Amino acid sequence: MQFTALQIATLIKGKIEGNPEAKVSHVAKIEEAKDGSLSFIANPKYEEYLYHSSASIIIVNDSLELKESVNPTLIRVKDAYSGFASLLEKYNELIARTGKNGIEQPSYISKKASIGKDVYVGAFSYIGDNVIIGENVKIYPGCYVGDNVVINDNSTLFSGVKVYDGCSIGSRVVVHSGTIIGGDGFGFAPQKDGTYKKVPQIGNVIIEDDVEIGANTTIDRATMGSTCIRKGVKLDNLIQIAHNVEVGENTVIAAQTGISGSTKVGKNCIIGGQVGIVGHIHIADGTRINAQSGLSKSVSSPNAALTGSPAFDYKSSLKSQAIFRNLPELLQRLSKIEEALDELTNAPKTNISVK
Amino acid sequence: MQFTALQIATLIKGKIEGNPEAKVSHVAKIEEAKDGSLSFIANPKYEEYLYHSSASIIIVNDSLELKESVNPTLIRVKDAYSGFASLLEKYNELIARTGKNGIEQPSYISKKASIGKDVYVGAFSYIGDNVIIGENVKIYPGCYVGDNVVINDNSTLFSGVKVYDGCSIGSRVVVHSGTIIGGDGFGFAPQKDGTYKKVPQIGNVIIEDDVEIGANTTIDRATMGSTCIRKGVKLDNLIQIAHNVEVGENTVIAAQTGISGSTKVGKNCIIGGQVGIVGHIHIADGTRINAQSGLSKSVSSPNAALTGSPAFDYKSSLKSQAIFRNLPELLQRLSKIEEALDELTNAPKTNISVK
Amino acid sequence: MQFTALQIATLIKGKIEGNPEAKVSHVAKIEEAKDGSLSFIANPKYEEYLYHSSASIIIVNDSLELKESVNPTLIRVKDAYSGFASLLEKYNELIARTGKNGIEQPSYISKKASIGKDVYVGAFSYIGDNVIIGENVKIYPGCYVGDNVVINDNSTLFSGVKVYDGCSIGSRVVVHSGTIIGGDGFGFAPQKDGTYKKVPQIGNVIIEDDVEIGANTTIDRATMGSTCIRKGVKLDNLIQIAHNVEVGENTVIAAQTGISGSTKVGKNCIIGGQVGIVGHIHIADGTRINAQSGLSKSVSSPNAALTGSPAFDYKSSLKSQAIFRNLPELLQRLSKIEEALDELTNAPKTNISVK
Repeated sequence: MQFTALQIATLIKGKIEGNPEAKVSHVAKIEEAKDGSLSFIANPKYEEYLYHSSASIIIVNDSLELKESVNPTLIRVKDAYSGFASLLEKYNELIARTGKNGIEQPSYISKKASIGKDVYVGAFSYIGDNVIIGENVKIYPGCYVGDNVVINDNSTLFSGVKVYDGCSIGSRVVVHSGTIIGGDGFGFAPQKDGTYKKVPQIGNVIIEDDVEIGANTTIDRATMGSTCIRKGVKLDNLIQIAHNVEVGENTVIAAQTGISGSTKVGKNCIIGGQVGIVGHIHIADGTRINAQSGLSKSVSSPNAALTGSPAFDYKSSLKSQAIFRNLPELLQRLSKIEEALDELTNAPKTNISVK
Repeated sequence: MQFTALQIATLIKGKIEGNPEAKVSHVAKIEEAKDGSLSFIANPKYEEYLYHSSASIIIVNDSLELKESVNPTLIRVKDAYSGFASLLEKYNELIARTGKNGIEQPSYISKKASIGKDVYVGAFSYIGDNVIIGENVKIYPGCYVGDNVVINDNSTLFSGVKVYDGCSIGSRVVVHSGTIIGGDGFGFAPQKDGTYKKVPQIGNVIIEDDVEIGANTTIDRATMGSTCIRKGVKLDNLIQIAHNVEVGENTVIAAQTGISGSTKVGKNCIIGGQVGIVGHIHIADGTRINAQSGLSKSVSSPNAALTGSPAFDYKSSLKSQAIFRNLPELLQRLSKIEEALDELTNAPKTNISVK
Repeated sequence: MQFTALQIATLIKGKIEGNPEAKVSHVAKIEEAKDGSLSFIANPKYEEYLYHSSASIIIVNDSLELKESVNPTLIRVKDAYSGFASLLEKYNELIARTGKNGIEQPSYISKKASIGKDVYVGAFSYIGDNVIIGENVKIYPGCYVGDNVVINDNSTLFSGVKVYDGCSIGSRVVVHSGTIIGGDGFGFAPQKDGTYKKVPQIGNVIIEDDVEIGANTTIDRATMGSTCIRKGVKLDNLIQIAHNVEVGENTVIAAQTGISGSTKVGKNCIIGGQVGIVGHIHIADGTRINAQSGLSKSVSSPNAALTGSPAFDYKSSLKSQAIFRNLPELLQRLSKIEEALDELTNAPKTNISVK
């Protein structure tokens, strides 16, 4: 299937620069684009590719200023990344993952469960008692949906997702393979004899609308009440969300980050990968936390940027890191000073003999 | 269902302060407690809530000294957290997860397997050859129990647990969803041509009694012998335990921590989240390791506290971290000294003209 | 089953030192070896065990020089670890995991799938449309193989592996339980209203020949094109490989490491556990990265060793770390200097009265 620059520009409301009849048959990254490729450049780091690319069509930012002439036909939009994304979305709908549908056998669906219209339940999936599944929900093979779970319209569980009893999943939620929702929180009371007594975890997990969760992530149920993943949150793979945590609307968290019990993360935060956050703290809206940081205290003013372990203000932290790298030099300077000083103070006092 | 303060105090052997006829219908966290709520305060951080809470009953520590009068009825016990936990436990038994039972279909149980009384095997679970399953074991849907595995009485595997062949699980063990027990250890011998040759991993994993393991954790089988998780150990989610590791009795490890091959962790240790521990070391009993630390050496004296990456003594490490934060200031002081010193030494020598 | 030193030496082409008729019935780690044990010593750290071991036979390096006489029969080979590994391999083939075979029921195999000779498909495994499975492939119970996936000869998926549609797996590949291949990359375009718009991920994952992947690891599909795991790569458990990453031939990565989007890792690299690597960088061949490091920049010269977060040259980094530990002392020295200097400069100027 081929598309022309004109067709694409129409779809994404872009401005053509070059041949409107240029044709593409596939999408490719700018580094790998060839004749027939449609590509895009959003990050200025990749601009250099523009001048040597054999791509047939490239989507670019409106603001891009050409330093030389280019061969490919350009389509300018305000935000090349979003433009490309919406194009892919349309492409995806048309061509790629055609919607799965119906109940595959063997699967296990409790007679007490309620299943909406146009639902897909893959083979080897398990739907427990009193489960309520909305319309157009897709449950890929090998999922487990425990008793009393609710899954709202248009949500997708990919293969092997496990949802413990009593949890609730909103509309248009996507959960990738191997993710566990509602496992017991890690709560044990130490006993005198050195053993630990389990604190029963009788709460649940609530995932609100438009959330996407990556693969093999774990979200524990609350001890009491609910662990909450608010509207529009995006979680990557292998993330740990402990009991009673709340992640605020539209917050984005990269892979392998862990958030300890009862911490509240604000809205619109951006949290890098492998970050660790202690329990029982509050993180203000719009906080940005750099990868591998360790956050041990609440963040009270919104929109702060933090890095380091323990984390503090981004700019100061970078300064400290730069000096850390030069500590051996700093130490040498210190030793030199000590020598000089030693010489000065131990030097025979100005010998003045005045008659 | 409603309970009175008197009923609760009797159950947990507490002392009532206030109205013994106060009634509760549900449990709630102290921050969210309302009329009809039963709550508890164990952590002094939450004490402030006490004076404004609308909870009907609050369980508190015996040692708590009131700063003002309070509305809720208090129940005092030695340890509010444990008291509350044992209450929840009773509640849980009575009301919440009613025990699953019987063999759901379709499931796969080898004819050579031996299954005890009152066992639950969920649909799509697989029990291999020569497996021995004790009494009252619960295996939720979609588990895999490889050949020659033994699971003792009263243990629970939640949905999607995979246990490789030859591993052994004790009594009253709980394993949460997605956890993998007995995958091959990561052992490869480098070859001259740059490739690696797999070292077959022919050992197993032994999980002793009263262990609880979180979700999506991985415990590798030993190259030879056994990887051992001793009695009473509690492991959180997404933890990595490499081949031939031993984790000592009643040690507690938080999420996303990794322990490399052949390391021996002592008893009653407390290890925070995202800690990394190198291979082939010994960690003494009672060691406490702070979150995100990196341990590269054995710890020989018991009950040490460590932090940092690489980790060292907790108190010293905190001091170094504090100075790290002020490195830019320290550098300025150093530069100032150098200037001053420069001035001193390069200053024209005391000009003394003596006729 | 018993083997003599002569039989073993013949198998691994070693030189016997001691009794060629010494018999072993099992393998054991050197620390735990008893009469009848076959063991090995590759790491000099374990050499001390040699002189007190009750093992019957020990495989050692050719280069080992004895400091005292020893009781066990020694078998010398160039590389004891490799020698032992190849022995275990033979042992494994003979005795331990006897190959699974055939199609267990219930399983789900699309009529449009093509299945090679001598394949094992465990119960509750799912093989989608147009899947091509080569000869002698083993798919343990509870796996999911999405539409259009290709798995070449002699590869093994252990229980619970999930492979999304369109991915490709080479020959002699081993994937351990719970690993997810081909989940969506983490790509979301920020919108003006604070929400995020998903960027469809229409690429795939390509796993080349002779790769081994541990348990619960996640490898995301490319946005476009392919995420590539090259020939001979070894990945441990709980690793995160983001979209469009490429891991070069024979690179080895330890547990819980994460590599962000579009980063290219060279050949023959050795990457420790819990390492974090940012996106869009290149890492030269033969780079060695220490555990828990955070790599934020490309590495352009091959065979560099790096450590720290942010990571820099290994040796310099160790020096900085050593000084970090002594920062409190360094600060004291600085304060002392300031005092001394203060005294010097504020001291009454050399009082000279010259008449």
